[in-house]
Amino acid sequence: MIEVNQNYLKLRGSYLFSEIAKRVREYSTMNPEKKIIRLGIGDVTRPLPPAVIEALHKAVDEQASAETFMGYAPDLGYEFLRNTIAENDYRARGCDISPDEIFVSDGAKSDCGNIQEIFSEQARVAVCDPVYPVYVDTNVMSGRAGSFDEAKGIWDRIIYMPCTEKNGFAPELPTEVPDLIYLCFPNNPTGSAITKEALQEWVDYANKNGSVILYDSAYEAYITEEGIPHSIYECEGARECAIELRSFSKKAGFTGLRLGYTVIPRSLVRGGVMLHSLWARRHGTKYNGAPYIVQKAGEAVYTPEGDIQIRENIDYYMRNAKVITDGLMSAGHSVSGGINAPYIWLKTPAGTDSWKFFDTLLHEANVVGTPGVGFGPSGEGYLRLTAFGDYDATIEAVRRIAEM
Amino acid sequence: MIEVNQNYLKLRGSYLFSEIAKRVREYSTMNPEKKIIRLGIGDVTRPLPPAVIEALHKAVDEQASAETFMGYAPDLGYEFLRNTIAENDYRARGCDISPDEIFVSDGAKSDCGNIQEIFSEQARVAVCDPVYPVYVDTNVMSGRAGSFDEAKGIWDRIIYMPCTEKNGFAPELPTEVPDLIYLCFPNNPTGSAITKEALQEWVDYANKNGSVILYDSAYEAYITEEGIPHSIYECEGARECAIELRSFSKKAGFTGLRLGYTVIPRSLVRGGVMLHSLWARRHGTKYNGAPYIVQKAGEAVYTPEGDIQIRENIDYYMRNAKVITDGLMSAGHSVSGGINAPYIWLKTPAGTDSWKFFDTLLHEANVVGTPGVGFGPSGEGYLRLTAFGDYDATIEAVRRIAEM
Repeated sequence: MIEVNQNYLKLRGSYLFSEIAKRVREYSTMNPEKKIIRLGIGDVTRPLPPAVIEALHKAVDEQASAETFMGYAPDLGYEFLRNTIAENDYRARGCDISPDEIFVSDGAKSDCGNIQEIFSEQARVAVCDPVYPVYVDTNVMSGRAGSFDEAKGIWDRIIYMPCTEKNGFAPELPTEVPDLIYLCFPNNPTGSAITKEALQEWVDYANKNGSVILYDSAYEAYITEEGIPHSIYECEGARECAIELRSFSKKAGFTGLRLGYTVIPRSLVRGGVMLHSLWARRHGTKYNGAPYIVQKAGEAVYTPEGDIQIRENIDYYMRNAKVITDGLMSAGHSVSGGINAPYIWLKTPAGTDSWKFFDTLLHEANVVGTPGVGFGPSGEGYLRLTAFGDYDATIEAVRRIAEM
Repeated sequence: MIEVNQNYLKLRGSYLFSEIAKRVREYSTMNPEKKIIRLGIGDVTRPLPPAVIEALHKAVDEQASAETFMGYAPDLGYEFLRNTIAENDYRARGCDISPDEIFVSDGAKSDCGNIQEIFSEQARVAVCDPVYPVYVDTNVMSGRAGSFDEAKGIWDRIIYMPCTEKNGFAPELPTEVPDLIYLCFPNNPTGSAITKEALQEWVDYANKNGSVILYDSAYEAYITEEGIPHSIYECEGARECAIELRSFSKKAGFTGLRLGYTVIPRSLVRGGVMLHSLWARRHGTKYNGAPYIVQKAGEAVYTPEGDIQIRENIDYYMRNAKVITDGLMSAGHSVSGGINAPYIWLKTPAGTDSWKFFDTLLHEANVVGTPGVGFGPSGEGYLRLTAFGDYDATIEAVRRIAEM
């Protein structure tokens, strides 16, 4: 009799979003006349920009005739896209990354979920707390997380790095040295950013200890301030210790198109092995390339028109972020994030717990947020709000919360 | 210092296709005047059918306005596609599969590579020999394959089921009972099919032993004979032991669009756990859904126009298969496959080894095949030819081989 992967059985229920949906549904059924505004989910709402639409139509037409039909894509992505990425996202910022160090994929969620596979099952993992749940769950599935401590709400083999008001939502270098360090900046869920100096400390720490940093910069397009790195490769020595994950989802509204990429420098070597080779082998064996038409859409994002158009959408969302931040602060709330990220981290008033405040917000303001505790124990006492909604609805939501 | 996944280091080089490319390149450089015909790769060449093109354009247009824009897809696929699949691929054939047992993905290669994750690392795996290399390599990566035996060309923890001329290229029930059994029918690379009676024996065997069958039916659309099952769920008891993998790649020319699906019946339970739940959790954690526009393209395949159009392409390829089979048989070659599959399994003359015959074919006929030994030791003495080429080029290739 075959056995299932016992690590899967340790997983916690995917409680957070199903519980939110349940509570919203119940409230909505009892109060059908109430207009609920959802600032909970991290999905974009603006349509794809015209340059991307045009590129898609053109690429689709190419598939209609034998002369221009494209079958299997190269495992690691088409050169036209890898060249454009290297040029615009890296060389233009002074980062030394070549096209053949870029692995095109169907998105950062897949990549950040799968990348752990190339490391030993014994590797000790460090994550920020609060954290994007995929980092933790995929390590539970592979047996690196240990056992779940119900009382503390943590896994006993994972090194948690609390990001709280006290440290400005910036993780501190852990005393127990991890092998694999997940960092996400600008951060989901707290919306905090990291300075180049602070990130350089992490790079130095990793190089000193032989650790590898998995740097998720899915939200880099939302950075508005100077001195905030868009890529970890802006730091010296990062080519020797860091893998970077990028996404077109939030940058260009591709949540429904699916496109992302992972960078592994050829100089990132552990135990005499280039991690680049391992990931190339994984990609070649378990993946068959992102669709040609989607890669052409990705290329269009970097054209002059595409660049202007995606910027308009980002500005639209960041105007929402400012409405939320300014409005809630004027009303006496304590908020952070929202300056270099589309997420606002709202402190619950008078130490109310996350779920209780979620309910209050739902019942009194008919606004849906995401309870911070759902992202980890240090998220307790917070609520995540997103800037991805409609502008007028966002203004209305803030007005309602302010009047509570 | 972090350690890499040591199982990855055991992997054999992806020798087969790079070696083919190298030999073709060398010959081509030395003989630039020769016109080489490639019947080696398994990629389609016909353009996407008009119904699919139209659906893609329509779906792209929907992404251009906020009212019809689609963001994150449901993890398991849109209902419109799952309903159509359940109706057309299963209920229409009398198979009891419901839409919520279908998991839409970016293709069968990803699914057949990832599915092993939900099973224990101790699971004993059985594969046909010759075999699609992904089944084996992904089990090497996860540590189930043991060590490679250089002399025999096999992994010592994998149970190989030889498919040879002697048994009509049909695997026999193994004496050592495996936990996980990979079956692919119609078969890649041999092009052989399995009868419903023979498949029923496998289902009974798996149910008796508590094994799970991973049934890859990526080529079912090429079946031309009666009595050959299109789905394993045509067999009694398969809902209790089988997972089925399907692909739009060969059926509808989606190799560059990426769409497939996996079926896990809710009644498939091992150790008290529904495998459906485990795969749902894997999909939800490490995958973010197939693109909306591609799922709409998939839906169009099942419309009356789409169905006629994909059938025209399949008929085109199967006409090639007949040209190859008939032509080579008339010339005195021994061939199999090509009746219910787009692959022809050509026995090398006079016991020549696969690579030597590959070279002869390349040098004397300027035709590229795939050496059978690249798919496993029992593939020695064979060459795989594919029916996915241009019709006229296929006729010319067969003429040249016949004249050798």
